[in-house]
Amino acid sequence: MNAFIKKLLGAWWRNLIYDPKSPPKFIKKRLVAIGGGTGLSNLLRGLRDHCENITAIVTMTDDGASSGRLRKEFNVLPPGDIRKCLLALSKEEPLLTRLFSYRFKEKEKNEIGGHSLGNLFLTALADIAGSFEEGVELASHLLNTQGEVLPVATEPLELVAETIDGKTIVGESQIVKSGYLPDKAKIRLSKVAKINPLAVEAITQAGFIIIGPGSLFTSILPNLLFPEVVKAINKSKAPVIYVLNASTEKGETEGLSGEKHLKIVSSHLKAQPNYCLVSERLLLSEKEGVLGNIKNITIKRRRLGKTKIIPVDILDEENPLYHHSEKLANALVRLITKS
Amino acid sequence: MNAFIKKLLGAWWRNLIYDPKSPPKFIKKRLVAIGGGTGLSNLLRGLRDHCENITAIVTMTDDGASSGRLRKEFNVLPPGDIRKCLLALSKEEPLLTRLFSYRFKEKEKNEIGGHSLGNLFLTALADIAGSFEEGVELASHLLNTQGEVLPVATEPLELVAETIDGKTIVGESQIVKSGYLPDKAKIRLSKVAKINPLAVEAITQAGFIIIGPGSLFTSILPNLLFPEVVKAINKSKAPVIYVLNASTEKGETEGLSGEKHLKIVSSHLKAQPNYCLVSERLLLSEKEGVLGNIKNITIKRRRLGKTKIIPVDILDEENPLYHHSEKLANALVRLITKS
Repeated sequence: MNAFIKKLLGAWWRNLIYDPKSPPKFIKKRLVAIGGGTGLSNLLRGLRDHCENITAIVTMTDDGASSGRLRKEFNVLPPGDIRKCLLALSKEEPLLTRLFSYRFKEKEKNEIGGHSLGNLFLTALADIAGSFEEGVELASHLLNTQGEVLPVATEPLELVAETIDGKTIVGESQIVKSGYLPDKAKIRLSKVAKINPLAVEAITQAGFIIIGPGSLFTSILPNLLFPEVVKAINKSKAPVIYVLNASTEKGETEGLSGEKHLKIVSSHLKAQPNYCLVSERLLLSEKEGVLGNIKNITIKRRRLGKTKIIPVDILDEENPLYHHSEKLANALVRLITKS
Repeated sequence: MNAFIKKLLGAWWRNLIYDPKSPPKFIKKRLVAIGGGTGLSNLLRGLRDHCENITAIVTMTDDGASSGRLRKEFNVLPPGDIRKCLLALSKEEPLLTRLFSYRFKEKEKNEIGGHSLGNLFLTALADIAGSFEEGVELASHLLNTQGEVLPVATEPLELVAETIDGKTIVGESQIVKSGYLPDKAKIRLSKVAKINPLAVEAITQAGFIIIGPGSLFTSILPNLLFPEVVKAINKSKAPVIYVLNASTEKGETEGLSGEKHLKIVSSHLKAQPNYCLVSERLLLSEKEGVLGNIKNITIKRRRLGKTKIIPVDILDEENPLYHHSEKLANALVRLITKS
């Protein structure tokens, strides 16, 4: 046991001592990263040690598993995506972050089983602080995050899909299950939702705006369904970088080319991103399928309309369906510091 | 909001600075306090700033509310009493302790409603560490407690009452509800339970042993139902102080005199405590009822068998059914430092 505690606390104490090997903070400009889910948290984990000032703007339409159950019971904003981002930016001792990411085992007759303890933390903090956004701010202090995490909305909201055959499907998980995406349905929010004014403020003050990576319809676009977000991005002089996903997703983007990804984002943005970061391996791949159609862009031109295509080595060798957190961060640092 | 965070964090930062007014640690000897529930945590809160070395040994038969639900779902040791003791000894920032003591609001169709977040913390930590005792040790690090908290047993256990009319009642809450206490039932453990060896070790090394205050049948005696505990107390040369409750409890000690309290504790201990600390107001009271029978001891003799009766001003003026944490601690410090 003592060895176990020492191991846990050891890393924490070590962190208190200045580490000359820790990467210097290259980026002084304020970065704003927009998205949700695993993609955004993966990006933040890599960028954390390279930025002085990073703000994550996180989608609020998640309704699966633990988040969905808490939404139902307490009518709180879904805490799952926020939790992942806070953990990605946390510089706190490993025991607290481990607790925050702990999930109770599923039991047959469960109350707590399947719940994430971090989600329960956030639900409690929202109640203590008086609002979800302020609860997230408290969690950010507690977890000692490098940068801030902002829910895009200040009230729970739901994603709705209108299908080409006239159906209305309510809820993110139902939409993904239905099989209408990517091209047989259009998504919208169930109501005009209250935007988090801090999110708009962050975009206004951004030096660079990063969109993605993340599930196109359920993590990226829900943020761009807020007219205030789109307006702020377009008003801002900050360059916009769209990070193309490393793979397509079942029920969401199957068969969708990289070019089409970019077009969908651009049409929601009502403008083209300045840059599109894409894995060079996907770009050069001869294989059809996974995002492969970007390979049709001739490497020389490296442009798609007004968007400059940046091919980089960013895939995770061990899990090439995902980006490698550090590689992605390094590519972004290079792009941002050279721009 | 910022004012709120500043208020919360403010106290924490202030705590980091040496406070010349903080009470000196009078007691260098190791104190062991045996009990459970609100009584024990109230005692610990007062003693925390006066001791260098304090160990709480906590009963493990609680089956009510949040603890009972977690017992049922995860077969963990009931965390409620442990949580209260950890909080009483914590020197951590107010936000973390506030989270640890947070309780989710009861809802009609609840999963999480009514649960204490601290209990969920402890359940998760028990799983992370591999055992409940080790989970409590991790919580103790996280909450930066002055002293340690030890569950008396290393496995879940149940209190059983055998009534004089031949019934067997299982479970602490059921026993209290049944109305057989204090004199129409005898309590025992449902099985021979594994004692926490660290609890025995603590008693062996104790400079002073404090029993109570706390619910006689459901917080004090369950600890003394372990033969190892009784044996260790009797083998130890440390003086034993029994702190008599400030009031009797419905379903448990109604109509039971102070003298009878002491007799029941002595019979379980197979020895008489060296001291019995009692509110002077109760001792001198002319009123019948609430523990009043100790008033029959002539103040001059101030002895009951081998036990020296110590009348002190320890009641909470605002809530005279309870002890005042600081007054009780001061009385104990005086007794211990003069002994």
